Amino acid sequence: MAVYDLANFAHRHLGPRESGVAEMLEALGYEDLDALTTAAMPANIAQPEPLVLPDALTETQAQARLRELAAKNTVKKSMIGQGFYDTITPAVIRRNVVENPGWYTAYTPYQPEISQGRLEAVLNFQTMVADLTGLEIANASLLDESSAAAEAVLMMRRANRKHSDAPVVVDTNIFPQTLSVIMGRTRSLGVETILVDLAADGLPEVDLCGVIVQQPADDGAIVNHQKVFDEAKERGAMISVIADLLSLTLITPPGEQGADIAVGTTQRFGVPLFYGGPHAAYMATQERFVRQMPGRLVGVSKDMAGTPAYRLALQTREQHIRREKATSNICTAQALLAVMAGMYGVYHGPEGVTEIAQRTHGMATRLAASLRDADFDLANEHFFDTVVVTVNDVDATIAKADDAGYNLRRFSDTQVAISTDETTTDADVEALAAVFDAEVGDGETAVNTELVRESEFMTHEIFQTIRSETTMMRYCRRLADRDLALDRTMIPLGSCTMKLNAAAEMEAITWPEFAGIHPYAPLEQAAGWQELIKDLESQLEAITGYAVVSLQSNAGSQGEYAGLQAIRQYLKAQGEMERDICIIPASAHGTNAASAVLAGLQVVVVKTADDGSIDSAHLDEVLDKHGDRIAAIMITYPSTAGIYDTDVVDICEKIHNAGGQVYIDGANLNALVGLAQPGKFGGDVSHLNLHKTFSIPHGGGGPGVGPVCVAEHLIPHLPAEPNGPLPDESTPVASTLHGSAGVLPITWSYITMMGAEALKEATQVAVLSANYLAHRLKDHFPVLYTGLNDLVAHECILDLREITKKTGVTAEDVSKRLMDFGFHAPTMAFPVPGTLMVEPTESEDLDELERFVTAMITIREEITEIEDEKVSVEASVLRNAPHPVADVVSSDWDRAYSVEQAAFPVPSLRVDKYFTPVSRVDQAGGDRNLICSCPPPEAFELN
Amino acid sequence: MAVYDLANFAHRHLGPRESGVAEMLEALGYEDLDALTTAAMPANIAQPEPLVLPDALTETQAQARLRELAAKNTVKKSMIGQGFYDTITPAVIRRNVVENPGWYTAYTPYQPEISQGRLEAVLNFQTMVADLTGLEIANASLLDESSAAAEAVLMMRRANRKHSDAPVVVDTNIFPQTLSVIMGRTRSLGVETILVDLAADGLPEVDLCGVIVQQPADDGAIVNHQKVFDEAKERGAMISVIADLLSLTLITPPGEQGADIAVGTTQRFGVPLFYGGPHAAYMATQERFVRQMPGRLVGVSKDMAGTPAYRLALQTREQHIRREKATSNICTAQALLAVMAGMYGVYHGPEGVTEIAQRTHGMATRLAASLRDADFDLANEHFFDTVVVTVNDVDATIAKADDAGYNLRRFSDTQVAISTDETTTDADVEALAAVFDAEVGDGETAVNTELVRESEFMTHEIFQTIRSETTMMRYCRRLADRDLALDRTMIPLGSCTMKLNAAAEMEAITWPEFAGIHPYAPLEQAAGWQELIKDLESQLEAITGYAVVSLQSNAGSQGEYAGLQAIRQYLKAQGEMERDICIIPASAHGTNAASAVLAGLQVVVVKTADDGSIDSAHLDEVLDKHGDRIAAIMITYPSTAGIYDTDVVDICEKIHNAGGQVYIDGANLNALVGLAQPGKFGGDVSHLNLHKTFSIPHGGGGPGVGPVCVAEHLIPHLPAEPNGPLPDESTPVASTLHGSAGVLPITWSYITMMGAEALKEATQVAVLSANYLAHRLKDHFPVLYTGLNDLVAHECILDLREITKKTGVTAEDVSKRLMDFGFHAPTMAFPVPGTLMVEPTESEDLDELERFVTAMITIREEITEIEDEKVSVEASVLRNAPHPVADVVSSDWDRAYSVEQAAFPVPSLRVDKYFTPVSRVDQAGGDRNLICSCPPPEAFELN
Repeated sequence: MAVYDLANFAHRHLGPRESGVAEMLEALGYEDLDALTTAAMPANIAQPEPLVLPDALTETQAQARLRELAAKNTVKKSMIGQGFYDTITPAVIRRNVVENPGWYTAYTPYQPEISQGRLEAVLNFQTMVADLTGLEIANASLLDESSAAAEAVLMMRRANRKHSDAPVVVDTNIFPQTLSVIMGRTRSLGVETILVDLAADGLPEVDLCGVIVQQPADDGAIVNHQKVFDEAKERGAMISVIADLLSLTLITPPGEQGADIAVGTTQRFGVPLFYGGPHAAYMATQERFVRQMPGRLVGVSKDMAGTPAYRLALQTREQHIRREKATSNICTAQALLAVMAGMYGVYHGPEGVTEIAQRTHGMATRLAASLRDADFDLANEHFFDTVVVTVNDVDATIAKADDAGYNLRRFSDTQVAISTDETTTDADVEALAAVFDAEVGDGETAVNTELVRESEFMTHEIFQTIRSETTMMRYCRRLADRDLALDRTMIPLGSCTMKLNAAAEMEAITWPEFAGIHPYAPLEQAAGWQELIKDLESQLEAITGYAVVSLQSNAGSQGEYAGLQAIRQYLKAQGEMERDICIIPASAHGTNAASAVLAGLQVVVVKTADDGSIDSAHLDEVLDKHGDRIAAIMITYPSTAGIYDTDVVDICEKIHNAGGQVYIDGANLNALVGLAQPGKFGGDVSHLNLHKTFSIPHGGGGPGVGPVCVAEHLIPHLPAEPNGPLPDESTPVASTLHGSAGVLPITWSYITMMGAEALKEATQVAVLSANYLAHRLKDHFPVLYTGLNDLVAHECILDLREITKKTGVTAEDVSKRLMDFGFHAPTMAFPVPGTLMVEPTESEDLDELERFVTAMITIREEITEIEDEKVSVEASVLRNAPHPVADVVSSDWDRAYSVEQAAFPVPSLRVDKYFTPVSRVDQAGGDRNLICSCPPPEAFELN
Repeated sequence: MAVYDLANFAHRHLGPRESGVAEMLEALGYEDLDALTTAAMPANIAQPEPLVLPDALTETQAQARLRELAAKNTVKKSMIGQGFYDTITPAVIRRNVVENPGWYTAYTPYQPEISQGRLEAVLNFQTMVADLTGLEIANASLLDESSAAAEAVLMMRRANRKHSDAPVVVDTNIFPQTLSVIMGRTRSLGVETILVDLAADGLPEVDLCGVIVQQPADDGAIVNHQKVFDEAKERGAMISVIADLLSLTLITPPGEQGADIAVGTTQRFGVPLFYGGPHAAYMATQERFVRQMPGRLVGVSKDMAGTPAYRLALQTREQHIRREKATSNICTAQALLAVMAGMYGVYHGPEGVTEIAQRTHGMATRLAASLRDADFDLANEHFFDTVVVTVNDVDATIAKADDAGYNLRRFSDTQVAISTDETTTDADVEALAAVFDAEVGDGETAVNTELVRESEFMTHEIFQTIRSETTMMRYCRRLADRDLALDRTMIPLGSCTMKLNAAAEMEAITWPEFAGIHPYAPLEQAAGWQELIKDLESQLEAITGYAVVSLQSNAGSQGEYAGLQAIRQYLKAQGEMERDICIIPASAHGTNAASAVLAGLQVVVVKTADDGSIDSAHLDEVLDKHGDRIAAIMITYPSTAGIYDTDVVDICEKIHNAGGQVYIDGANLNALVGLAQPGKFGGDVSHLNLHKTFSIPHGGGGPGVGPVCVAEHLIPHLPAEPNGPLPDESTPVASTLHGSAGVLPITWSYITMMGAEALKEATQVAVLSANYLAHRLKDHFPVLYTGLNDLVAHECILDLREITKKTGVTAEDVSKRLMDFGFHAPTMAFPVPGTLMVEPTESEDLDELERFVTAMITIREEITEIEDEKVSVEASVLRNAPHPVADVVSSDWDRAYSVEQAAFPVPSLRVDKYFTPVSRVDQAGGDRNLICSCPPPEAFELN
């Protein structure tokens, strides 16, 4: 079969060999892959014509094409600023984190025992952010500065209960993209905002919920807002500050000025420009507001032995638990980017980041002095890194700078803005002065005297001890070694599609010609980016059958929000604003509901039938009852039960007949690519997850990319360009037009190297592998749902509820025990509590599938011992799993099972053994005693 | 101090912080670093003026400069061939091996217990080579094809005892660079050779020692030499074949044709052109000749538990043991490159490499057909990848090809040669045909019918099972995880200088603009390379105080040979050929003696005095006795005892007065850089080790780079350009003029980013750290030698002989026990048996030094228990070290110490623990039952 030609990338992407495929097909009783998927998937959704894409390129050809595209970009020194600054990624971090699969192929740390390394790295990030902002607690990162600012506004509404219906004052001196995202988000929720130039006009005399300002401001000014803050607090309003983290080494931090919330980007902490993203935004707040804070939060707890252990805290706030009542619809953080920024802090320490800030500031002050000496009019006396200067001819000035190799920002029709950064040199200042025919002068600090930072920060040992590259390299390795990622094991996580992230897909993202472009650079400097993005859009359009794709959403959740916004705005344009109900199946991922609420819709839940599909009768009832109020239905296909429901076409028709729109969540697209197109079988809009189906690595919990795909009629309502005024008919969802552009070469490479035929085969092999696992395991653990011909789609749910009832052994016990076998746990308790959802993907070979089967069968035997009352569940190897090395290397072992059974339940583990660094982590205890910054070293003292 | 400025690379390269330096200085009682090194080093060698180099560049500036240099190279499609072929490095291997510090920072696997991963990887390489060549046993790689061929000639002389004084027949149809190196090497040893066109003229009618041919030959021909081989064997001669490994998938392998030895390069197995190197050469032979085979050899043995375990076999053959009686002077292999080639074999498998060979061959046959159709005259009917064609105007043809983007080889005044490779495409064949105004024709196989390979190869499971990128990535990780490298621990190996290999130094080597240049490409295409090499030469000249540096030697041993050759040829030019004695101190590294012999010198040993220095009286005796026969002395400075001897200037004078030359071995240059220059205090020639002093990583046992530095009078005798006729006055030592050019950007970056001041400080910190360790440990383990003011240089020798005498605990026991603490052992038994030599380098911080001190003191306490007769040495934790996890996780533990003591002798190990995968390996047993290819999977079966 051509897909397995040796030179093909598909030959490498696919796990099972042809012989493995044949063996699995035989076990299932199917002639070939087509026969299998024809049997599994309803005929009425099958795409009539094969997918058509350009011929697959080999790895070498794709690299050559990427180099061509890269060469079409022009890397100029970017002084545009506006939230994006050039920075130096320490090579040791690039090599040992960003380019190391141990870090980038890891999943979100929901299973803390196999995630201690990245949890520590993110905790460092949180500690650094909290310290720099002068606030008590910071989260594990948000998606970008603009959406973080919007989240801050919404959080003030939640937290300030007394004034939650009062308007939020938004200062006008905020980056345009942030203003645009804030205004879009509040518009869709009907939150009232008042735009005010606070520095000039002060607070309006109305009841207020909160105030949000940016510091330094859009025009670079460091404004002393203390009076406004004091007055706002007095009037019961909350305060949010969008702050540049680097500047906070020099400027009094928001926390010390009385702010309740600080947000911003951490991009300039060593994360490349990436043509706009991905970058980790941050949010910090006071401890009392922690339960209102959106996003993930790493906290400290203890394991069974009392050893400090990290884990995600307060998950009950999150969308997957609270659904439409969640604090936010955000699922992912920008974990890998937060790790980078945190590592940058660890490596530079407080003295290092301060020096970087001082240098950056010094360059700006010298430039300002030069311009002043040359009689230019500057906008501000107090600034950090940005000088706004009035010129005679903005176009001519920008053109002259461009000729000299610099991009300036067009700030207004009479002003340009110039932002310095870590990379700015004396030579740059001279060259820039020359653009203005000025001579370089001496700068003096331009930080307002009363706002000079005096407090210490980053005082924890971790920011004090690692300065040499050798220690940094070892720290990166030590943390990575504590975790299980795809580079060591299958991660059979249902609904997460943990497939190969190929090296050839990853390489281009750190090339300077891609990574070094500012998102607001002139288009002609980004010609290669533009071409790649257009290419990718048309690839995704071909695959999904939709008319147009937008790549702006930088997470699946943002894709959902953007897709629902498109529907909302379409309905508005049609004059159907009374349609405000979004139907969501009970089995849907919690984010669906949270996103619907965020988009201003009301959620009505339809029940799940016994077979896991949507209860058709109940749907009819809902449609009857709510008639003209139906805006949309959100369905996941294949369903979250891992089944190709047979009535999806019917359901789409029903909704359409009721005048509603159909939103098909693309989370499970890995079961459809090449076989069926949601844009053709009933969807009006879908979002995809490039970090699932399309090979972008999960990065330990981000970056994600969640493109929105729409049918013709929704095109005008796709996310708008955020760097400009907010249009009526569409809403931006991220800081930049192309969101996390920086990682798009990964998906481009994946699709380009696979080609149409192999993409289809990948889908089929994923379905085959899932069915094979179901087949091999069903006699040991019942498979909860099957569809047509007793087949599952690309994942299967193992039902442990009977076992739990009989023996007390829970899905959690099995998950933790799998760690002793060196496996990441499957998805637990979703979509059905008490079950495990297993998704092998197409990238695992038959040996690895069999290794998993062996582990599961061995565990089933261990369960049988409890069933047979040979051991109690409390004393069992299952309940006490996982077993760290410090447990099993023990002279005082007195458990009901041997150390060998604990550590080496199968013989191959004697040779390649992964030990979790801690035993089972106490989740609830950690939430009771919430600690979300680095614990003191004494906490880890061993005797 | 400026060196510690935050933006400086030195701030990152140096381990101890300023506070750590201060603390160590205080412990030793010195005011500052200058005071320390002034006290340690004799004043008469100190360089009068500070080292002068251009100002240090930051990492960013150095990267920018490297990008400039890279841009000056032009990557054309290279069809030059001649032993160097473009190839595709699978991205998964590049990322997970070449760019992974776990692989490249590892040391030579002399300590097998912490080297099982790379030993397995090299064993794969050996197995692949043995299979492909049809011979029984292959070594762990040699330095390059040309020197491997020379080694084959010398090996035939050793192995063919009956005819060892008879001449060796060298076929003329061999690559010119190989011919040049063979003829140079045999000339220096006085080995008689006869150059014959064997295909035309057959064997000469004289007594013969051996025959060496190349297959396919220089002109691309596949010659059926069977008759010559048969006749040679009948006449008692041995046969060596220089064979292209890829072609052997299609052509009857040398072993099946009766060859005794096969050599060649494995470059085209996924290793970039690298402008000539480093690449792994191979040598394979019949098992009965194994003890005559040069180079390292990985073999299979067992550990204490009987588990199969890999280790270096037959080390007794090697130079460090047998000195002037060694089989060769080679110390290093090209381990990292052999690992790459082996991984390429694992990933492609036999079917994959065969397909690559067929495709390569097919392109050549189509090109040949095209040329024949267009009435060109081709040199050969039978060929693999190279077509030699007669043209009217060679210059014009080459120029036309160049215009089309291709480099051809000027084969003769009337012929060009065109070699295809893995990367050649249909479009290339068309473009090349167009250069000749030909149309592409259909090719048929051009392999001689009687030489078609029929035997199987690469049948071992390891070449059958790993096909998907996921499994390959995990295999790379699994093997790396078994080993200890610098990315996890200090490697305190005396004489090996295991310092930081910084990521910023490493990045450029895989850039295509550097890695993609053919060594024989037109100079103007390598302008960036030329500039970088000239830069580096002048940096090294400034540092060493010599007149000129040659970068050709691709290992320290080759540097020694080249340096001694320079002396020999100088003496010859002076008419002093009677000077044939090389004086070597007893304490010298064995390679010195082996190299001297290889350079045609006789070795006279001078004794070591009690203080570790050269016995001056004995030296005088030797000089008196041998008078006019003294060619040279080879001394290492600081001495191998780790001491700055005080009389080095005197000794140099004595030798010069006797008319001899002074060779100063630069192995310990890390104690001199910035403080003293061997070229100024008495040396006529030195070789350096860029993989020691100058940050090139050890790669698990290669690549090495051993530049030769000479005074003015020796310049004419530096290594010649190998790609041309052999000059009288100089001898090439490698296949290409710049040897392992590919890794030179590492050293360039190191020196460029450090600058003069920091280089000196690095030396001083290295000396400080060694003295600090000596100070901290001397009450526990006596320090064998100290020099001026009781100070050591950059390393110190811990004397265990008293302990061994009293307790039976050996240096080996201590070394193996250190593994349980997560440390690589220090250098064992060199230069003094029963001792450990410890070299911390400047890159380890004080914490790591203290961690080592704690480990050593803890071990000393364990020794005390034996001393106090609490436990016997046989039963002790020391003798049974190291302890793999399968040992200590045991219900049947019945040893004299607890599992906790075995695994966690210090508490921090409970958190970060490295377990050796095997227990102590049986070295002697492995040599008794020699197995040097992958063992069958059953050998590893566990129950």
